[in-house]
Amino acid sequence: MRRDELRLILEQVRAGELDIEEAASRIAAEPVSDLGFAHLDHHRELRKDLPEVVYCESKPVGTVGPIARNLAERSTGNIILTRASEEVFREVAEFLPEAEYHPLARLIVVRREERVPVGKVVVVSGGTADIPVAEEAALVAELSGNRVQRLFDVGVAGVHRLLSHMEVFHHANVVVVVAGMEGALASLVGGLVACPVVAVPTSVGYGASFGGLAALLTMLNSCAPGVAVVNIDNGFGAGYLAHLINQAAARERT
Amino acid sequence: MRRDELRLILEQVRAGELDIEEAASRIAAEPVSDLGFAHLDHHRELRKDLPEVVYCESKPVGTVGPIARNLAERSTGNIILTRASEEVFREVAEFLPEAEYHPLARLIVVRREERVPVGKVVVVSGGTADIPVAEEAALVAELSGNRVQRLFDVGVAGVHRLLSHMEVFHHANVVVVVAGMEGALASLVGGLVACPVVAVPTSVGYGASFGGLAALLTMLNSCAPGVAVVNIDNGFGAGYLAHLINQAAARERT
Amino acid sequence: MRRDELRLILEQVRAGELDIEEAASRIAAEPVSDLGFAHLDHHRELRKDLPEVVYCESKPVGTVGPIARNLAERSTGNIILTRASEEVFREVAEFLPEAEYHPLARLIVVRREERVPVGKVVVVSGGTADIPVAEEAALVAELSGNRVQRLFDVGVAGVHRLLSHMEVFHHANVVVVVAGMEGALASLVGGLVACPVVAVPTSVGYGASFGGLAALLTMLNSCAPGVAVVNIDNGFGAGYLAHLINQAAARERT
Amino acid sequence: MRRDELRLILEQVRAGELDIEEAASRIAAEPVSDLGFAHLDHHRELRKDLPEVVYCESKPVGTVGPIARNLAERSTGNIILTRASEEVFREVAEFLPEAEYHPLARLIVVRREERVPVGKVVVVSGGTADIPVAEEAALVAELSGNRVQRLFDVGVAGVHRLLSHMEVFHHANVVVVVAGMEGALASLVGGLVACPVVAVPTSVGYGASFGGLAALLTMLNSCAPGVAVVNIDNGFGAGYLAHLINQAAARERT
Amino acid sequence: MRRDELRLILEQVRAGELDIEEAASRIAAEPVSDLGFAHLDHHRELRKDLPEVVYCESKPVGTVGPIARNLAERSTGNIILTRASEEVFREVAEFLPEAEYHPLARLIVVRREERVPVGKVVVVSGGTADIPVAEEAALVAELSGNRVQRLFDVGVAGVHRLLSHMEVFHHANVVVVVAGMEGALASLVGGLVACPVVAVPTSVGYGASFGGLAALLTMLNSCAPGVAVVNIDNGFGAGYLAHLINQAAARERT
Amino acid sequence: MRRDELRLILEQVRAGELDIEEAASRIAAEPVSDLGFAHLDHHRELRKDLPEVVYCESKPVGTVGPIARNLAERSTGNIILTRASEEVFREVAEFLPEAEYHPLARLIVVRREERVPVGKVVVVSGGTADIPVAEEAALVAELSGNRVQRLFDVGVAGVHRLLSHMEVFHHANVVVVVAGMEGALASLVGGLVACPVVAVPTSVGYGASFGGLAALLTMLNSCAPGVAVVNIDNGFGAGYLAHLINQAAARERT
Amino acid sequence: MRRDELRLILEQVRAGELDIEEAASRIAAEPVSDLGFAHLDHHRELRKDLPEVVYCESKPVGTVGPIARNLAERSTGNIILTRASEEVFREVAEFLPEAEYHPLARLIVVRREERVPVGKVVVVSGGTADIPVAEEAALVAELSGNRVQRLFDVGVAGVHRLLSHMEVFHHANVVVVVAGMEGALASLVGGLVACPVVAVPTSVGYGASFGGLAALLTMLNSCAPGVAVVNIDNGFGAGYLAHLINQAAARERT
Amino acid sequence: MRRDELRLILEQVRAGELDIEEAASRIAAEPVSDLGFAHLDHHRELRKDLPEVVYCESKPVGTVGPIARNLAERSTGNIILTRASEEVFREVAEFLPEAEYHPLARLIVVRREERVPVGKVVVVSGGTADIPVAEEAALVAELSGNRVQRLFDVGVAGVHRLLSHMEVFHHANVVVVVAGMEGALASLVGGLVACPVVAVPTSVGYGASFGGLAALLTMLNSCAPGVAVVNIDNGFGAGYLAHLINQAAARERT
Repeated sequence: MRRDELRLILEQVRAGELDIEEAASRIAAEPVSDLGFAHLDHHRELRKDLPEVVYCESKPVGTVGPIARNLAERSTGNIILTRASEEVFREVAEFLPEAEYHPLARLIVVRREERVPVGKVVVVSGGTADIPVAEEAALVAELSGNRVQRLFDVGVAGVHRLLSHMEVFHHANVVVVVAGMEGALASLVGGLVACPVVAVPTSVGYGASFGGLAALLTMLNSCAPGVAVVNIDNGFGAGYLAHLINQAAARERT
Repeated sequence: MRRDELRLILEQVRAGELDIEEAASRIAAEPVSDLGFAHLDHHRELRKDLPEVVYCESKPVGTVGPIARNLAERSTGNIILTRASEEVFREVAEFLPEAEYHPLARLIVVRREERVPVGKVVVVSGGTADIPVAEEAALVAELSGNRVQRLFDVGVAGVHRLLSHMEVFHHANVVVVVAGMEGALASLVGGLVACPVVAVPTSVGYGASFGGLAALLTMLNSCAPGVAVVNIDNGFGAGYLAHLINQAAARERT
Repeated sequence: MRRDELRLILEQVRAGELDIEEAASRIAAEPVSDLGFAHLDHHRELRKDLPEVVYCESKPVGTVGPIARNLAERSTGNIILTRASEEVFREVAEFLPEAEYHPLARLIVVRREERVPVGKVVVVSGGTADIPVAEEAALVAELSGNRVQRLFDVGVAGVHRLLSHMEVFHHANVVVVVAGMEGALASLVGGLVACPVVAVPTSVGYGASFGGLAALLTMLNSCAPGVAVVNIDNGFGAGYLAHLINQAAARERT
Repeated sequence: MRRDELRLILEQVRAGELDIEEAASRIAAEPVSDLGFAHLDHHRELRKDLPEVVYCESKPVGTVGPIARNLAERSTGNIILTRASEEVFREVAEFLPEAEYHPLARLIVVRREERVPVGKVVVVSGGTADIPVAEEAALVAELSGNRVQRLFDVGVAGVHRLLSHMEVFHHANVVVVVAGMEGALASLVGGLVACPVVAVPTSVGYGASFGGLAALLTMLNSCAPGVAVVNIDNGFGAGYLAHLINQAAARERT
Repeated sequence: MRRDELRLILEQVRAGELDIEEAASRIAAEPVSDLGFAHLDHHRELRKDLPEVVYCESKPVGTVGPIARNLAERSTGNIILTRASEEVFREVAEFLPEAEYHPLARLIVVRREERVPVGKVVVVSGGTADIPVAEEAALVAELSGNRVQRLFDVGVAGVHRLLSHMEVFHHANVVVVVAGMEGALASLVGGLVACPVVAVPTSVGYGASFGGLAALLTMLNSCAPGVAVVNIDNGFGAGYLAHLINQAAARERT
Repeated sequence: MRRDELRLILEQVRAGELDIEEAASRIAAEPVSDLGFAHLDHHRELRKDLPEVVYCESKPVGTVGPIARNLAERSTGNIILTRASEEVFREVAEFLPEAEYHPLARLIVVRREERVPVGKVVVVSGGTADIPVAEEAALVAELSGNRVQRLFDVGVAGVHRLLSHMEVFHHANVVVVVAGMEGALASLVGGLVACPVVAVPTSVGYGASFGGLAALLTMLNSCAPGVAVVNIDNGFGAGYLAHLINQAAARERT
Repeated sequence: MRRDELRLILEQVRAGELDIEEAASRIAAEPVSDLGFAHLDHHRELRKDLPEVVYCESKPVGTVGPIARNLAERSTGNIILTRASEEVFREVAEFLPEAEYHPLARLIVVRREERVPVGKVVVVSGGTADIPVAEEAALVAELSGNRVQRLFDVGVAGVHRLLSHMEVFHHANVVVVVAGMEGALASLVGGLVACPVVAVPTSVGYGASFGGLAALLTMLNSCAPGVAVVNIDNGFGAGYLAHLINQAAARERT
Repeated sequence: MRRDELRLILEQVRAGELDIEEAASRIAAEPVSDLGFAHLDHHRELRKDLPEVVYCESKPVGTVGPIARNLAERSTGNIILTRASEEVFREVAEFLPEAEYHPLARLIVVRREERVPVGKVVVVSGGTADIPVAEEAALVAELSGNRVQRLFDVGVAGVHRLLSHMEVFHHANVVVVVAGMEGALASLVGGLVACPVVAVPTSVGYGASFGGLAALLTMLNSCAPGVAVVNIDNGFGAGYLAHLINQAAARERT
């Protein structure tokens, strides 16, 4: 309930058009969405700029298609479906033939508006095997209206690969670092750039990588300040966070 | 080596004032700080706004005092010493009598310039036991020139404490959430605000909290997007990251 | 051996109808079921109200059908088979054609008596992916004769979803909270209701959820009192526990 | 804000005594405590029967005394301070001379009302070293108005110790099982009684007990249904949960 | 090289029939089997009573058959192949048609001598799902010449099942306890019998059983003395150990 | 209750000297110690040969002395107090001046009978730092009436130290292997001897030994059959188990 | 950029042939590859002796073939593709028909030069199941130009197997020890040889081997000095490291 | 027993001077040191160049002094005592007044021969807090006769610190990298140098460093080949390993 809706109820009470008990009930009926969100105009403002997002992994067969169509009917913005298999894509495409599939990033995108990309997000990945997660982050950020620059396969085992591309980081508002195995790239980048770094450990590796735990711990213990970490393989989360940081910073310059 | 220094060397070469071998040696002498940093003007620009920072925990007795004096002589900005015991403070105070000690946050601050705080950083803590880490984050952000608002002791066990203070989050550019035990506060806040959330798990708890591991995993698995995590008890890191995000966003409005 | 059976033996001894050695042997023959259970009248009273339960997961192919028929012959109450695949259902249905299958909850139910549901158990789930476990808990409680109310998909990422349905918790005797990922919902609910909360972590999640460990630790460290935890994905255990708590409390009001 | 307060505001609006803007502001001012709690009458009803509780472990020196006095001034019920050292007790006793200290359970109790104990809670412990945690649970339950029966030092290494005391469990509404080392007692008791079992793993043990982890895992994996688990060494939580379960069940009989 | 072979060489040297260099080389040629085993007569004596054993799990396709035939040609005793799939059995049966397959225990047995079983080994299992591992232990002990008594499905959730069969343990020289989930059965049995207990945790369970870790820790922390533990699911190891203990003890009585 | 006591009651019933209700009550009064132990004659026979044992570690100050005196009054055998500090020893010595203290093994021994040691137990340790645990095992076995031979400081880093003492293992009925760090000694010994090996991991080590976890895992995964494991640092348990195995085997030869 | 290239630029500046701004830009353009690598002549010298290596495991279908052809065109040395399935081999063989496949070691080798093997690398494995990893290490070392001697299936369970082949270690410059299960072989070998030992834990095992963790911890805690560890199953890494150590040592003698 | 000793015995047998039984016993008496070590001439050659080493940490008070004096009497080389407290130093100094103490590295050194350092070992550390472990490695290598160059405080957070000192690695035969926190320095160095890298994780850090586990996993998962890892904080082990590698390589050039 928005504040103007509340005012309307109060006016109806004053005008005797609305019973007091009824008014009290209406106000009590949705207490939080009402007042909680009245505080959050700025929040929703931002939110309506965001693509709609569906996490597909654990959804039962046959449910994602209808969900996607629903979203398409209720909103006019872009729609992203994450962790989508090709099978899910076929299911979605039946309902929304304009859907496109990014197999590497396992994303389904229903593109319905074109935004002028602003600011600058850099997405860096350690090895080629980390690219699916990196690409997921990059695409999510792009679809949310951010200018994204990719710098892939620049792991610390050959540090010159990163150092010879330092110009990529010029004027970046945020850098997303995606790395598996030992995940050291986040610390290295964190020591080289002045903007926030969002680090994404990946499950790439074997043996004592323990499914991404090694890279996760590396990034959490980064000796470079300015590095924050999201869950293992969480490319979507990193792209979304990069979007939030970049949008705020970009307003100034665009 | 800055670009103007490089230019000077080249001019001296052109003018015949400098031998080619000598010039090559000077350039080669500090290859990276030289050229690496030539790419990072923006970086240093930001950096020079930052207080100097010393991590005290593992430094041997008698070393922190001289380090602090050194910093004080070399720069004119604020100096922060983190994880400082009272004993270390006495050591520093001998060299820098103007140093002030914040026992709760275990910070020593040498305040030498007053910045006009800009933007808005909100620091939220779950329980009273989390306050030392929260206060460390808040003070670091304040000393770096950010406007900081505190909201302490609003853990999820009594969710109305948080919900009745939603106005605190108005126009926040970043929220730092500090919580131990189960650390659920980060997810809750992440679902309520539209700006980035920096989550700090603390080691507060016992038994199956395993020194902060429980809160750390909670925060990494947050079902609310827009939450990034730093190391357990890393108040400094969160404050620094909040500073980076807030500064970029704040330029627009101030 | 019940106390009356013991008395009968003693009477036969007194009447000289039973040899002392023989009497001693009979008494010694089942020492515990005998005397242990003589203490537990109340126990069995409750127990005979319970459905019979079979855990199917590790049973070899071809064994569950006969077990189920056996149970059906020996008792007249409801029968529940947990963690049953569709294949196991077909096996059971050959023996007991009246069996019904709940694929989401992976339960087979042989409904043979209708109980008037008493009291109130609320089952809450965080996300849609947690519904199978939540539904297992809800069905087990319902089949045991409890009134169950479901509130699904109210995770902490959108706290208003929970808060706008607080009336669900009115007069609940116990709340079962089912949540994966970071599992923070248990703490939130624990802080809002006055009855016991049974928390069920699920294995829903990825990366640092480590198969449900993150949610498990969250729930064990809940800062809200009144929260107890069962094993990861243990919907049956939660439903059974809710039944025990609700039955005792419900007697008063029904 | 209670519903009658809301009604009053609405009546003032209708009577023209209150400006609409002002009314909207008052309603928005404390949205949740207002409406959230209007749903929770039953909750508070129970709550006011509870002792006030303070967790002392991480509170800074000098803070617990004033907190305790505050509580004593604001309420008339019993006050419990958990995990209190003797030093904290002396601090509290200065403010509240009537405070009593239970060193084994590390509890400070300010007894200000005598409740007639109802129902039956049984607290069982495995070894003598588990008694402090067991005693914490028992005292918390007693102070909350429950009849408590203790059965200590009946670990599974000598199962006859438990089996020869089965009469203790007669008419129990809930059993709290406290055990360290391998924690097997919870499963054993869970298989013998018909009421809910609250299991408390303790950190008693060495080597591969890993600070209570072994007992915790044992209890979570209990093959006996009806067992729920709280955090390692969480005697308070178990006592509180036992109170909630016992109060509901006891109303019927008392 | 046995001591008599060494003596023979030395006699040939004394007799001048053997060159000193040649003698030194022969002695050096198999230094350890030589002298190490000269110390171990008793060892081999026992060993030659043992069936030959082949662990099949990680052997490449096509290798187990020839290995088994080899063993059959080189020795006359029983042969056991552990962790054998049905596919491996077919492979072995081509070479040794007399081989028999125990699918539950995943053992292939080539029975070529019948031993009079001596002593008494009791194998106890917690649930039906633990029977494959229990059966592996029982069969290995039987084939090695031990009298084995089985007591399956007597987990602690219904302690009377075990207690009403205490006579099974009469005159047992060793008890093997096989249990998954929380593994509490080992402690219970350890408290009831006076002979050594070999505990085998199984990977039966889900969630926080972490592949048998819970049962393993339970057994290692057993509060009953006289319990030793082997690896998770290691039925063979337990059967072999029971054989060693029982043989030594049984000699006295048979 | 022994079988003869049961018979007496039955005879009194037959003779009309005892009321049936009274008889039923007496039988029910101690159901398990009664009948459970009637099955365990052999058990107690062995048990009465054992020293009495008290685990001191978690006992509160002032309790061990009285416990020890109690034991001394109730039995005539040896008494062992494990994990005893020197302070506990002084406490015990006040009550039992004949008590002797073994500071290395942290054992207090009250020696009141001298047994002729039988059989042969070998206790092997890896490094000098493992000796306290090894000595605890050796002393416990000696005091229980077993002949014990020690072989200390023969870790695998210098395998010749072990191999040049192979004669120690002649006619051993059981070998206890005590080792920290990587704990490889258990596998090595397991491959060299034909009797059961009881392996004791110790917490000796640093870094990735994780308090004995490394040695524990090593021993559980031993590729040599015939190795069973007890808890980290559990010298008492190993000595007790060695006693059980050795006594049974030794009867034959002594 | 090499130093002579830098000199050339400086000469052009002095000669007025090159604008200062242009010169500064050229120098800044590749700062690190320039100077960083000027320091690393020795590095590359060695490197060009190495085979080219491709890690296949996580590469998408259809990418490895072209990569291999590319390498074959760009260099003239041997090419190794690690962790290659047979399917990948067929893909590569289409492009490079001379490729050979080692299914055990899962290596594809494109042999294009024959090196005279120098020095001596010994590769030892514990069990037959460890041979694939051991063979990977051995082949990598051989293809890099080292003389390799294999000693397989000499685990500690039968220590004489190793001790009777001590001559293998004569003049070895480095020993690679490959072992799963408890991994004790590394310590044993470490105590017997005087050259560096590279230890490779394998994931061979079950239960408490936890995917190779047990062997990894064993090797890290080796009480024998001179042992260094690589990741679980990292045969390539061990072979490469052995190559580096052997080449340096071998130069002296060949 | 060396081969010439064996020959002597055989000659005495041939000459009739030695009884056959006596000869057989002498040969059997030390089977392994005999033949095992006959194979290891090269080993001992190296070994006698090594300082004697004593690990002090777990040695009881009063034992290290006599051990050190013993060593001093039996050999003429340098003696190193690792992990020595100042208290232990005072104890040693009583026996060996020439002993010197390195408090940072916690080493006691008894210097009795001066070796000409050969080859080149580089020891690199990440932060100042890692210096004690780095210094331990460096001193051990120096005392063993290696030329050592230190490069401390060059962690990845400021990569230019390392890159501007690349000349340090010229002609290094082995690099020891010591780093705590996230330990990324090992990967970085591994990618820059061509010689073997010995990586030492340290326990420096807090929170999710878990006592050095984070750095350990980082180093084990290094994406740079040529990196081998020793235990957490094992400076001695790294120094010793560096010595072995450097000595072999250095012989060529010196």
